[in-house]
Formats: sequence, C-alpha cells, structure tokens
Amino acid sequence: MKEDRNILQILRHSRHDWLNVIQLIKGNLTLKKYDRVEEIIQEIVNQTQNESKLSNLNMPKFASDLLVFNWVNKNHFQLEFEVIGDCVDLQSYDERLLQWFMEFSNHLNESCERYGENHLQLTVELMEEELPRFTFDFHGSLQEVEKINKFLGNEQNWNEQLQLVESYINKEEFYITIQLV
Amino acid sequence: MKEDRNILQILRHSRHDWLNVIQLIKGNLTLKKYDRVEEIIQEIVNQTQNESKLSNLNMPKFASDLLVFNWVNKNHFQLEFEVIGDCVDLQSYDERLLQWFMEFSNHLNESCERYGENHLQLTVELMEEELPRFTFDFHGSLQEVEKINKFLGNEQNWNEQLQLVESYINKEEFYITIQLV
Repeated sequence: MKEDRNILQILRHSRHDWLNVIQLIKGNLTLKKYDRVEEIIQEIVNQTQNESKLSNLNMPKFASDLLVFNWVNKNHFQLEFEVIGDCVDLQSYDERLLQWFMEFSNHLNESCERYGENHLQLTVELMEEELPRFTFDFHGSLQEVEKINKFLGNEQNWNEQLQLVESYINKEEFYITIQLV
Repeated sequence: MKEDRNILQILRHSRHDWLNVIQLIKGNLTLKKYDRVEEIIQEIVNQTQNESKLSNLNMPKFASDLLVFNWVNKNHFQLEFEVIGDCVDLQSYDERLLQWFMEFSNHLNESCERYGENHLQLTVELMEEELPRFTFDFHGSLQEVEKINKFLGNEQNWNEQLQLVESYINKEEFYITIQLV
C-alpha cells in the first residue's frame, strides 16, 4: 500500500514537472518564438540524458534519492546535476555516497537561507583512467558558513572510499570536490 | 533496494514516454506544422488530466497498476483510460477492483493475438446520484472469444461490490460495463 502511494506520488511530481515544460513550449508557440521552443526542447533532452546516465551508474539508492530530491518539501535548495563521461559501475559506493549526501544536504538545509534562491549543481566526472569525481557547486545565500566548514573538517565524514579533494566556501557560493577511491 | 530500483525503473519509463511526446513536437516544429503541435499538446494535457483524476480516486493499488500497465512487457494490449465526472472516494473498492482487473487482463492477454494492434480503453464514469461505472472497450484481434465469455460468466468474478451491467463481444471488439455497488 505504502509503495503504491509512493508510485502515485512520484508519477504526480514527474507529471507536474513535464507539464511545466509543455506549458513553456505552448506559451512560446503562442508568441511564435520558435527558436526559444527549440532551445527549451534541447534543454529538456539534455536533462533527461543526465537523468538516464545517473540511473545507469548502478547506484539505485543514491540515484533515486537525487531524482526525487527536488520533490521533497523540506529541502531549501534546488538540485541540478550533470554526468560527464561514460557510465561506469559504481555500485560499491552506493550506500556510502547516499549516507554522505544525506548528511551533507541536511547540513546545507540548516545553513542556507530559507525561501532563498539556492541552487546546488552536482557535476559527476567519469574520466578514463581517473577516479570518479563529484563536484558540488552552490550559489545562493548561506547563513551558517561555519556549519559547512565543520562538516568538511569532520574526519567521520571521510573514509577509504570517499575523499575530499578540494573546497572553497563563502557566504554566496561554495564548491566541494570529492573523489571515490 | 528493490524499491529504489523500482523508482528508477518507473522514472525511466515515464521519461521515455515524455521524450516521445517531445520528439513528436520537435518533428512537427521542423515541418512548421504548428497546428499539429498544438493538437499534440492538447492531447497530452488531456491525458495527464485523466492520470491525475485516476490518482485522486483514493485507489492507490488499482491506480498505480493502471499507470504502469503499458510499461509491463508481458501485456499484449495497450491500455488507455479516461475519467469522466468529479472525483469521489472509491477506497473501499481498491483491493477488489485490482484483483478483478488483474484476473481480467490475464484472460485478455491469453485471448488476444500477440504482437497484434490491441487496444483497451477504460472509461470511468462518475456521475452524481449514479453508481460508478467502468467500461472496458477493446479493439484488436481476439483469438479466444470463449475465454472472455467464460470469465464473464464465472460467478466467482462478481460479488456484492462488483456487478456486470452489460457486455458485447466478437472477434474484433468487445465492451464490458461493470458497476461498483
């Protein structure tokens, strides 16, 4: 029963997002802005390609959490993501990465301004002969920079699978690059 | 884990369906068939309204089964549906209706020609001061009409909640109207 309601809810959110795209196309068609319609279509095709790539990394927990992330009311920032490179099997990192991301997003939710324009862009880089890299790029308004710094400095958040490569942080933006070892 | 894979799978199917619509829009845009684009948009908006109405009948099991129906490989017919009238709470019928529909669709799968152009249209009528009616309208190729007739004649498929109102059946089409009491 719970899973059925969950399916209905996921499809409701997905339908809502797609209808927004359709409305955007419709509006621009009415205004005869055909070039803009093509741009919108290209954007949505790119986005679905990223979603598809994320889904093919064999990390069902992490991927499903990311795909439904913007539908969860309690989050105070919007998440976007991009996957660069060819898909690889990251199954062994699934559990650990999900835990890390949940912890990280909890800290970010507590740190950023509520109802502000907060965006987090995740870029997954899967380059041949290099370790997979995940870069989190934030733009918005941070009220508690220290909270994020403390999270990054906490040894418990890092281990033999997950390493911090670099980070930069101020009140309006930050980036954090982590590496899967 | 199973549920996470399920979420990924549902979103993958949904994405695939929506991308087909987007490709259709894109193709017609290229051909400058703007009227056709508007028609496609209207069709998809209607369809999502029906999906949304179906999801609001408080029948999570039956509704989720119908919404994912066309994504299940084992089915030999395409399902479409329409909900006419204002939404009502049909929760008490959820379990029974799902069971009935699974039984019915199993029989139909065994009866209709595989890889044929088989369509089943469900119309849900929710009229004030009338009992909710579900009409199943089939067009395609039936190889075993008797199987469906036997299913309809089997007393075990009907009870105090579900009644057969009328039916008509031949090798190319049938309709069955049932009533929720």
